[in-house]
Amino acid sequence: MEEITQFELSKEFLDRFRQAVADKDQAFIASSLESVNTVDISALLEEFNADESKFVLSLLGNEITADVVSNLDEDTRTRFLKLFEPSEVAEVVKDLDSDDAADILGELSIQKREEVINLIDDQETESNILELLHYEEDVAGGLMAKELIKANFNWTIIQTIDEIRRQAEKVEKIYSVYVVDDNGKLLGRVSLKKILLTNDKTKIGDIYDADIVSVDTFTEEEEVASIMRKYDLDAVPVVNTQGKLVGRITVDDILDVITEMAEEERQLMSGIAEDVEEDDSIWILTRARLPWLIIGVAGGLLSAEFMGLFEEDIMNGAWIALFLPLIQATGGNVGIQSSSIVVQSLANPSAFEEGLWKRLLKVFLVALLNALVLSILVFGASNLMGFSLEQCFVISLALFSVVVLASFVGTITPLILNKVGFNPALASGPFITTLNDILGLAIYFYIIHLLINNF
Amino acid sequence: MEEITQFELSKEFLDRFRQAVADKDQAFIASSLESVNTVDISALLEEFNADESKFVLSLLGNEITADVVSNLDEDTRTRFLKLFEPSEVAEVVKDLDSDDAADILGELSIQKREEVINLIDDQETESNILELLHYEEDVAGGLMAKELIKANFNWTIIQTIDEIRRQAEKVEKIYSVYVVDDNGKLLGRVSLKKILLTNDKTKIGDIYDADIVSVDTFTEEEEVASIMRKYDLDAVPVVNTQGKLVGRITVDDILDVITEMAEEERQLMSGIAEDVEEDDSIWILTRARLPWLIIGVAGGLLSAEFMGLFEEDIMNGAWIALFLPLIQATGGNVGIQSSSIVVQSLANPSAFEEGLWKRLLKVFLVALLNALVLSILVFGASNLMGFSLEQCFVISLALFSVVVLASFVGTITPLILNKVGFNPALASGPFITTLNDILGLAIYFYIIHLLINNF
Repeated sequence: MEEITQFELSKEFLDRFRQAVADKDQAFIASSLESVNTVDISALLEEFNADESKFVLSLLGNEITADVVSNLDEDTRTRFLKLFEPSEVAEVVKDLDSDDAADILGELSIQKREEVINLIDDQETESNILELLHYEEDVAGGLMAKELIKANFNWTIIQTIDEIRRQAEKVEKIYSVYVVDDNGKLLGRVSLKKILLTNDKTKIGDIYDADIVSVDTFTEEEEVASIMRKYDLDAVPVVNTQGKLVGRITVDDILDVITEMAEEERQLMSGIAEDVEEDDSIWILTRARLPWLIIGVAGGLLSAEFMGLFEEDIMNGAWIALFLPLIQATGGNVGIQSSSIVVQSLANPSAFEEGLWKRLLKVFLVALLNALVLSILVFGASNLMGFSLEQCFVISLALFSVVVLASFVGTITPLILNKVGFNPALASGPFITTLNDILGLAIYFYIIHLLINNF
Repeated sequence: MEEITQFELSKEFLDRFRQAVADKDQAFIASSLESVNTVDISALLEEFNADESKFVLSLLGNEITADVVSNLDEDTRTRFLKLFEPSEVAEVVKDLDSDDAADILGELSIQKREEVINLIDDQETESNILELLHYEEDVAGGLMAKELIKANFNWTIIQTIDEIRRQAEKVEKIYSVYVVDDNGKLLGRVSLKKILLTNDKTKIGDIYDADIVSVDTFTEEEEVASIMRKYDLDAVPVVNTQGKLVGRITVDDILDVITEMAEEERQLMSGIAEDVEEDDSIWILTRARLPWLIIGVAGGLLSAEFMGLFEEDIMNGAWIALFLPLIQATGGNVGIQSSSIVVQSLANPSAFEEGLWKRLLKVFLVALLNALVLSILVFGASNLMGFSLEQCFVISLALFSVVVLASFVGTITPLILNKVGFNPALASGPFITTLNDILGLAIYFYIIHLLINNF
């Protein structure tokens, strides 16, 4: 409707297509997919099993097959490639950008991977893939592709255009031409626009832009994302420790990194242990949820055990029990808010961080203000509800202490997690919340025990 | 260190720079910022007040000033532009892309905005900005810039290159040349690479790619982001209801949209009411946190009032109180997990959604499995802790019911929120958690009341 050729994957089309696959109606399959974007073909194939998908792909060209396979969900692709002979995988891989090819090979068993690599005839493709397989997945080296256009700073514009012509088939999106010296060291870049608008005989060395941001092969993907976002880059060159240009990361990969980071954070915050989606199996969904639930349950049992020490107090004054949910929920809410603000500032570091003590002092002041407002409120409300002044005082004081403590724990935990290399968003998840719950309980009963014996 | 010319904003430099600003040392300021990226100058100015910043900018060129102002944080910029005369704002705005210019004008008071617009001499710039100001901020029309290169399908390559030359100064990143018919209707696109590699006399109409994705001016920004991510687009053309090309959205804007969406979700999930950062004032931080805390406290007070009805039960069996934290924490965790999985699948809709009933059935099965495992675990553990079989049974049954109910509420709430136009991530926040807490409590006491009178 609104997009000129965005493919509408309707229920009707799916039913018709399913029928065609069942009937092996090659004519219908080939013609109906003719001008469909490979991204949409991948989405369509998610609805079919591996055998059916392989049949559909056999009717499309090699290059289309390569793109479709590369767009598939990782789970689907793994299932799917099991049906492929090493020679068929090699056929797919040779038509892909080196980064996508390396990703797919990284998903195969080591034996199959080696068989596939041996079957790639093109020397350059093979060595590119082998190089990329060396890097960790979550650093610049693991994100980059080898495909890029580079020009020696001694070349003229016309020589550079010849090089672009030579490489054009391999490099889908050019953005910039990178300028290197005789040793391959990155010097700068020239935009395609500038090449188009400059006289053919001009030397690259005279027009290139030396003001260029690059990353190292070992730069972490989060940092690559933050640099590209900060400087509005479409692509960033990757250099090795000698400053030699070894690859390029394009912005579409960074969009995926940012989206995955957000998903990981959501899962940590909500206590889901694996990267699950709603359409995963019941068993996988349960397995992803149980670990954190069991930790929460263990915390609850520990709380019960602990409160057992005060059983007599509770029998003498059931009002103590009535305010447990209030104390616990408020402590939990304050803790999560505090963690979240720290996680946010860790994700967007400003140029100059304030020192730790200044930060904690501020958190403490915010906590005091919140605690004061809430405890006055609760004092008034519980008094209206008919509790004695002493009881109201105990509850308010306990609430006050829990808010201040939960702020502190909520602030310090993500900082520590970050320091020791964990994702700080874990601090907003159930593990820390459970710890906070137990702490809150301890304070509440400590204050009660201390005060009601003195009234 | 690792980036070739990434500016290092060191503490030492900041101190030296601060001194230079205090001394009005124009030579040092101008020379030290000479080759610094405008993004870094903006970050530096965040450390100075509006007067000082204005003094620093007065030493840099008009274009640099425009870029720096456009890169500033919105809060800082608002404070900052208060010091600018309308004529000075007009000076800044005329050097910016139309989308950035419109964003800045949108932040001014209506009176000042009109004064500024009247001071822009360039007719085209003025009408571009006026057009963009019409759109809501969060739809494609509000994200797009007017700057783009378009070519009539009758033009030759050489005519197109002339047009690019004419527009080159205004359009910073070209990506593609859009192809339109005589009425300005979008037909397709040609990549810059293809223009570079094609014979000068070839007609655009013969080489353009008609397989192009576009969005409407009223498409929501989330959808624009998801389309650009899905199809790996660097830029997407925006058309009006007649199919006429009216603007272009580039991927750098989408990176910001995705990052902001993640931040908004984090704030909703952690119950923070405004878009706050750690370096906001104590007052703003408190104001952002109190509303949700007060809702949580109100829920806690309601719980207390409700449990008051069962005060006698508690006095007779303090063990009832001991398991309150277990029941509540588990209910909370299950609810948040369930919401989070729904939020995730709403953020990444698959091509074919399963029907609501099939979805709920699956959630129900996962919940049953989780509930079964947890309640068996708690039955065993509480028995080991010395509670009677009857007590263990009551607790396990209550836990079982709470897990199933919390799964249901956690699944259905984000779906409803999404349906009525709210952000579904709200379901993982404190409001729904508080509701869940009260529901869990009600179930727990209902079961206890029902069963202990029958034992």
